[in-house]
Amino acid sequence: MSEATPAVGRRSATLEDVAREAGVSRATVSRVVNGVRNVDPAIQEAVRRAVASTGYTPNSAARSLVTRRPDPVRRAATVALVVTGAGEDSPEGPGAAVFTDPFFGRVVSGVFAALRPHGMHPVLMLADTPASREQVVSYLHGGGADGALVVTTHAEDALPAALLASGRPAVLFGAPDAALPLSYVDLANRDGARLAADHLAARGCRRVVTIAGPSGVQAGRDRLAGFRDAMARHGHPFTPAVEADFTHAGGERAMARLLAEEPELDGVFAANDLMARGALAVLAEHGRRVPEDVAVVGFDDSSAALSGRPLLTTVRQPVERMAEEMTRILLTRLADPAARPTCVIFEPELVVRQSA
Amino acid sequence: MSEATPAVGRRSATLEDVAREAGVSRATVSRVVNGVRNVDPAIQEAVRRAVASTGYTPNSAARSLVTRRPDPVRRAATVALVVTGAGEDSPEGPGAAVFTDPFFGRVVSGVFAALRPHGMHPVLMLADTPASREQVVSYLHGGGADGALVVTTHAEDALPAALLASGRPAVLFGAPDAALPLSYVDLANRDGARLAADHLAARGCRRVVTIAGPSGVQAGRDRLAGFRDAMARHGHPFTPAVEADFTHAGGERAMARLLAEEPELDGVFAANDLMARGALAVLAEHGRRVPEDVAVVGFDDSSAALSGRPLLTTVRQPVERMAEEMTRILLTRLADPAARPTCVIFEPELVVRQSA
Repeated sequence: MSEATPAVGRRSATLEDVAREAGVSRATVSRVVNGVRNVDPAIQEAVRRAVASTGYTPNSAARSLVTRRPDPVRRAATVALVVTGAGEDSPEGPGAAVFTDPFFGRVVSGVFAALRPHGMHPVLMLADTPASREQVVSYLHGGGADGALVVTTHAEDALPAALLASGRPAVLFGAPDAALPLSYVDLANRDGARLAADHLAARGCRRVVTIAGPSGVQAGRDRLAGFRDAMARHGHPFTPAVEADFTHAGGERAMARLLAEEPELDGVFAANDLMARGALAVLAEHGRRVPEDVAVVGFDDSSAALSGRPLLTTVRQPVERMAEEMTRILLTRLADPAARPTCVIFEPELVVRQSA
Repeated sequence: MSEATPAVGRRSATLEDVAREAGVSRATVSRVVNGVRNVDPAIQEAVRRAVASTGYTPNSAARSLVTRRPDPVRRAATVALVVTGAGEDSPEGPGAAVFTDPFFGRVVSGVFAALRPHGMHPVLMLADTPASREQVVSYLHGGGADGALVVTTHAEDALPAALLASGRPAVLFGAPDAALPLSYVDLANRDGARLAADHLAARGCRRVVTIAGPSGVQAGRDRLAGFRDAMARHGHPFTPAVEADFTHAGGERAMARLLAEEPELDGVFAANDLMARGALAVLAEHGRRVPEDVAVVGFDDSSAALSGRPLLTTVRQPVERMAEEMTRILLTRLADPAARPTCVIFEPELVVRQSA
């Protein structure tokens, strides 16, 4: 028997049951169930009571989605996982810089965690040029996939607006640049950067610099702004920054420039772990001890944080869980085309290891 | 106008034209065009003459595949990219260890390079358990995809035999464990390991150890056997080895064990770059200078080779080109179901940097 066989006997409670019981929208139930903030405490309480009285569990919700489709192989909805803004062309092939970033693998893993119970598999698409973006849109528009999960990583991007126009449901990893009625998951990036700033300030760092992410990516802008705001609150009116491209090599180049401009620097915040690793390599070449001479904080808590010495102190972004939630939002939307756009914001967390 | 519009006027030469002209199979033409060894020099010459006389270029071959399908979105074949043997379950989610390995990203990039001219996109599947393996097979059998690209990374695998039984064309990255009539691309892994052994021996290393890949993976076994054979030719009857799982953490654990067993070691060959990076981290903790005290050679030339200091001396595996070729073999097979299984073996190359 396959997992898709409907449960015999007693029907499991669904998200809808909880929403009806609590008198709130499905999206609100989803937010509360997934432990998301920015929900009124009174509403949270109402949802929790409804969850208890209906006996709802997230797993039974997953089952309910499947049982609407009698044959998961032939009839299940198709979901596209679209990687956009793949940055410069690489001699290594299309999207090489994105696909070899541990961030991408974490997204894929989270998407699989959410699709697997439904026997679904993502179609992988790359929209790194105007031509390939158009291809993605026409693929979706033509019914090649029923909905899209969109991950923007290395550059600004016109895809979300085009997807909206195509009429197919889409959920973004990261808020869209422009205010668009699209669903998304995101991290509280500014708060994450503040955790890094507070930690460096608490260590007594006085000459702190930052390696910023691409200014074309919202997460890059938010981490820079959040870091500078927090440093200002610690009495530092200006934090030197060099922008880089979220790659190891980019982090190396930025660190070399910052060392030239600020030879006395004693603290570095890099907007992702790969760039932090690049910074560590350059600091080592310059004979700076980490964390004794220079404290370094990364962002993401990806595999790069543990792939060398010192182990990286970093701000954790729960990418796998975020990708899983992004996928669940899309599945909910596919099951209920009238569902309104929703968003889920995750909380960052400081992970203290050796580098700061 | 889309790329799929047939060229007006003069028809471009196809792989078939070259094969007919040279009097050889399509597979042979493909091997020669892609610079593969193990083709008789006389046949190579005949193919090159036929290429010149027909004016064939690989790009026009790609076009010919597309022009058989008037509507690339609705009618194009669907290709599954199946990742198998994903190793232990991770708290990070299904397949996390595989998906965050730079190897996976390089494969995806190569697959995209080959599919993009056809407006095709891979369906990503994970076969890391008996249940998910069965799901993949029934998905293919049910027509969810027309053919499969199979990448085995972290453990032994029963999928190839099951795919063969399903009747759908499949091309493997790496030769199958058992002798099966399936197409594959592979690296001359033994020769690659020999390059590492010769380099360490030429540096004067006398106490050499190796961190082997999983014995359940053919590439792991071949690299170990090739390395030991070559060391024997240099007069070392026994090379201590510890098996690990192709991960950074696995490399760390193996290096710690080898240091305990062979405190005088002066050379390390790790069967991939991630494990070599793990070894470097542990050597640094033990105060061993690299390459002065211990020379370290990795394998793959992945992004991990450049993600830290010292830069890694390694054996290059052209994963992107191999994945591209794997995909082309599958496309050829889809266009011509009668095509016989074929294989393409790539040559490794030593890349000397700082670590040895």
